[in-house]
Amino acid sequence: MTPDSIKKFAAEAAKLPGIGPRQATRIAFYLAREGNKKIASLASALTGLSGLTQCELCHNIMPVSEGKQCAICRNPQRNPTIVAVVEKETDLLSLEKTGKFSGRYCVLGELAKDGLLEPEEKRRLKKLQERAREIKPEGKFNELIIALNHTAYGELGAISLIQEMKPFAKKITRLGRGLPTGGEVEFADEETLGGALASRN
Amino acid sequence: MTPDSIKKFAAEAAKLPGIGPRQATRIAFYLAREGNKKIASLASALTGLSGLTQCELCHNIMPVSEGKQCAICRNPQRNPTIVAVVEKETDLLSLEKTGKFSGRYCVLGELAKDGLLEPEEKRRLKKLQERAREIKPEGKFNELIIALNHTAYGELGAISLIQEMKPFAKKITRLGRGLPTGGEVEFADEETLGGALASRN
Repeated sequence: MTPDSIKKFAAEAAKLPGIGPRQATRIAFYLAREGNKKIASLASALTGLSGLTQCELCHNIMPVSEGKQCAICRNPQRNPTIVAVVEKETDLLSLEKTGKFSGRYCVLGELAKDGLLEPEEKRRLKKLQERAREIKPEGKFNELIIALNHTAYGELGAISLIQEMKPFAKKITRLGRGLPTGGEVEFADEETLGGALASRN
Repeated sequence: MTPDSIKKFAAEAAKLPGIGPRQATRIAFYLAREGNKKIASLASALTGLSGLTQCELCHNIMPVSEGKQCAICRNPQRNPTIVAVVEKETDLLSLEKTGKFSGRYCVLGELAKDGLLEPEEKRRLKKLQERAREIKPEGKFNELIIALNHTAYGELGAISLIQEMKPFAKKITRLGRGLPTGGEVEFADEETLGGALASRN
């Protein structure tokens, strides 16, 4: 009943983050309805992504044309002894948007819900340890900022990270806990308010 | 900061149904991370969609290779005097899966939230009226089933449809209202329970 090409596209699209089988089918029909011009422009944007690669130092996504290291890792103004560990490229972008961080990054990859590090994540931590060793004379970062989500699996991930990175950083910090800007005391949940109390200044 | 090809893909993907700008960016980074093999297989599935077209009678999506009319419209076993009007191709598929409908369809397109018909939907209704006129001798469908969602805008759409199609159908019906199978009286909302009472049999 459903055309094969709809099924095939829906199966591929359902593997993308946050897209379920129903939405994938809906998108397939939408594109078929919109017609060839729409399909071609999406296909061209999609193919454009193959011009991207990972920075060999921080694993951020960057254009192949820029070489092996991303603009942040190549920038001598950015302090190589202060590194923020984030899960995703979009987390890195959010931190960059604050304009308040002049260190470098390590993009770790999305943590599993059990907080255990996957093989690729372990490989990236090894690379981070190498980066620490290259810092003269102590072979340690001055500061490692664990910028993971303040969620249950983020906590577990942070514990693993601290364990692995302790010998490679003089100081390990985490993002502050507290009331978000614009947040109201009355409506904050207990955990958030507790965090805000503990980090009062 | 964000590579141009990520921005370009995210802008295209954010136009797809149910995908917002944040998720679109996340998908772009995901694909860039997964690499060229993944991108190529999604691109190939995407290009496959250009082999689809709309049935000239019911507007269902069908392979170009099958001609101008879809398998249902070409099937002499399917009663052309009973037509179900649905919003989306996926609604048609859901009705087909029941195995209880042997009439034909009109895929209307997704209704706007104000229930007013858009130009393309009006064009499809005109086509439906033509289909009615071709039925000998009365130029009317025996039954037109309005299979729209039982939501506020579905109600509004149904009113427009009844108005437009009244002269072209001996009988206009709507999908029954009631408790879903497996539904419990205690947990049904008032509207649903009211509908179930009204349609008791």
